[in-house]
Amino acid sequence: MEMKIALLPGDGIGPEVIAQAVKVVKAVAENFGHEVSFEEAPVGAAAIDLEGDPYPDSTHDVCLRADAVLFGAIGDPKYDNDPKAKVRPEQGLLRMRQKLGLFANVRPTFTFPSLIHKSPLKLERVEGVDFVFFRELTGGIYFGEPRGRNEQGTKAFDTNVYSKEEIARLARMGFEAAQKRRKHLTCVDKANVLATSRLWRETVQEIAPEYPDVKVEYEFVDAVAMRLIQWPKAYDVLITENLFGDILTDEASVISGSMGLMPSASLGVENKLFEPIHGSYPQAAGKDIANPLATVLSAAMMFEYAFGLKAEAEAIAAVVNASLAAGVVTEDIADGGKAYKTSEVGDWLAANL
Amino acid sequence: MEMKIALLPGDGIGPEVIAQAVKVVKAVAENFGHEVSFEEAPVGAAAIDLEGDPYPDSTHDVCLRADAVLFGAIGDPKYDNDPKAKVRPEQGLLRMRQKLGLFANVRPTFTFPSLIHKSPLKLERVEGVDFVFFRELTGGIYFGEPRGRNEQGTKAFDTNVYSKEEIARLARMGFEAAQKRRKHLTCVDKANVLATSRLWRETVQEIAPEYPDVKVEYEFVDAVAMRLIQWPKAYDVLITENLFGDILTDEASVISGSMGLMPSASLGVENKLFEPIHGSYPQAAGKDIANPLATVLSAAMMFEYAFGLKAEAEAIAAVVNASLAAGVVTEDIADGGKAYKTSEVGDWLAANL
Ligand SMILES: CC(C)[C@H](C(=O)O)[C@@H](O)C(=O)O
Ligand SMILES: CC(C)[C@H](C(=O)O)[C@@H](O)C(=O)O
Repeated sequence: MEMKIALLPGDGIGPEVIAQAVKVVKAVAENFGHEVSFEEAPVGAAAIDLEGDPYPDSTHDVCLRADAVLFGAIGDPKYDNDPKAKVRPEQGLLRMRQKLGLFANVRPTFTFPSLIHKSPLKLERVEGVDFVFFRELTGGIYFGEPRGRNEQGTKAFDTNVYSKEEIARLARMGFEAAQKRRKHLTCVDKANVLATSRLWRETVQEIAPEYPDVKVEYEFVDAVAMRLIQWPKAYDVLITENLFGDILTDEASVISGSMGLMPSASLGVENKLFEPIHGSYPQAAGKDIANPLATVLSAAMMFEYAFGLKAEAEAIAAVVNASLAAGVVTEDIADGGKAYKTSEVGDWLAANL
Repeated sequence: MEMKIALLPGDGIGPEVIAQAVKVVKAVAENFGHEVSFEEAPVGAAAIDLEGDPYPDSTHDVCLRADAVLFGAIGDPKYDNDPKAKVRPEQGLLRMRQKLGLFANVRPTFTFPSLIHKSPLKLERVEGVDFVFFRELTGGIYFGEPRGRNEQGTKAFDTNVYSKEEIARLARMGFEAAQKRRKHLTCVDKANVLATSRLWRETVQEIAPEYPDVKVEYEFVDAVAMRLIQWPKAYDVLITENLFGDILTDEASVISGSMGLMPSASLGVENKLFEPIHGSYPQAAGKDIANPLATVLSAAMMFEYAFGLKAEAEAIAAVVNASLAAGVVTEDIADGGKAYKTSEVGDWLAANL
């Protein structure tokens, strides 16, 4: 197969972890006889510094030309604490999601036996946890208009807005995933307060009969925020709106003890993007110490979701497990053992595929 | 002192737990020489059933006449799964908060040594946790207009809105609390996305210099959702908007292992309301098995926050600790030991003050 992959390393540790994923993708392509080409483009603070825009048109073109996008991380502290900053790296991320139509953010949470002891939760709560969030990514309060200030600047407002179609297409993805998993779907909303949430619940209730084998539950976002910690094993597939998904998927990411390993996919009709869930971790940038495994596993998701190549995805998962078993890991999970460099882990993975 | 207390038992286990708090308040009043009178009024599903309104004017009048309100819980499953229900118990709660001007919801999280083993978190993460949320309670997306549907019903919207004054009065309460505690305040927002959050951050930055002894930090809501589980000891005072507060305070409530014991206060300029953080727990209603300690500790907060009576508050805290030490507890925390009835725990507390 021929694959054109756009590389958007972004900020902080982004370039370093993307470089390791590239090594692994090249090795997989060689082993399985695929032809892979890469085109790189700036995004985030890196793109602001270069072109004054966190998601330049030229970067968008690179994404449109590609079959899949591999994304690092964005965010730079110099933009975070200035509430009046005119351009922020995050705006690039949001514009990219919208222009590429990436309406579904897929975030699995699962455990690695060798890392589960790092979970803040007790072993019996977290052993065997395996759920996946489908977060709506191009709607809701992230994009709703009007948003801004009154003239005097003393009042600010944002608009949360959802259409039935936006809800339905995300919900269908969730239902289809549930059918391939444990057939249990949880719709997370705040239908006791929000008009948008009532439309979510209503729409999901209308669609549910099309998936009679899936058990559907409706839970309030505050209850889920509790139960994710109390009984994370209770969940299989969760669907939710953009803002709730932002909060809950990050909360979920600390459960397994392997946050540095968690991948994600952002899917649209035409475009597909893959990225680690961790941030740009600026303190570690340039030190060759960042953990590349989440990005490597995001590349595995890419083989499966963008190209339908399951064996390739499994080969990557297998070599990641092998590196964990062999202790070829970065300092964050070295646990007193030898800490390998980011680049060394990448080399080992590519060599041992 | 003379104290007029409005009792709003509400739904589910509300009446049973309020009844125990009343026993304790009466006993404290007797011991300390106060004169206490109670006036009861319906709220929630109970009030819908009686008067077709979850917060009737007559109930509001009872609250206005009182010096403090002691509230049980509201919510009935028969209203939850009907997205088209015209009257919902929660509307009563929201109307009550707004009409009484209860703009600050104060939610402490602390540990009880005898219950800490029930925490889903590992002991070393949770031992000594002691933080308090100040959640804005009468603004934001809970009340913003416009909200609703388009004509065809295919699109729904909600408005998040905050004024500088709303933010400032809540923030000042947080700063004052921080000055009496560990002098560390965290402003929780989503300033990288929301216009309202940028106004929060800006307003807090403007106020901060008035409290030079308080260290202020700004964190995104998604990061706090993670760190509350990873390092809950890192927090002292947290201030945030209504919706983020709803999610994060519920998340926080499972940390200590003693959710059934966590009290809260909702404070305004004229009115003050005290309630357990747990819900109406309909499955347990009428069985005399619900844990009354959160409501009893809410009564303790009432003595302190509504009447400035710290010794009385401490006497209640002490007898609650004594009941835990003596194992006079309901089945949820009996841990294989004898389970006392709700009413028996109340009697024991009143007798042992
Ligand atoms: C950086 C920020 C705008 C973004 C979001 O809120 O969506 C991030 O938190 C995420 O979840 O990808
Ligand atoms: C019942 C509901 C409307 C309410 C809220 O969202 O404020 C509850 O969750 C709470 O936190 O008191």
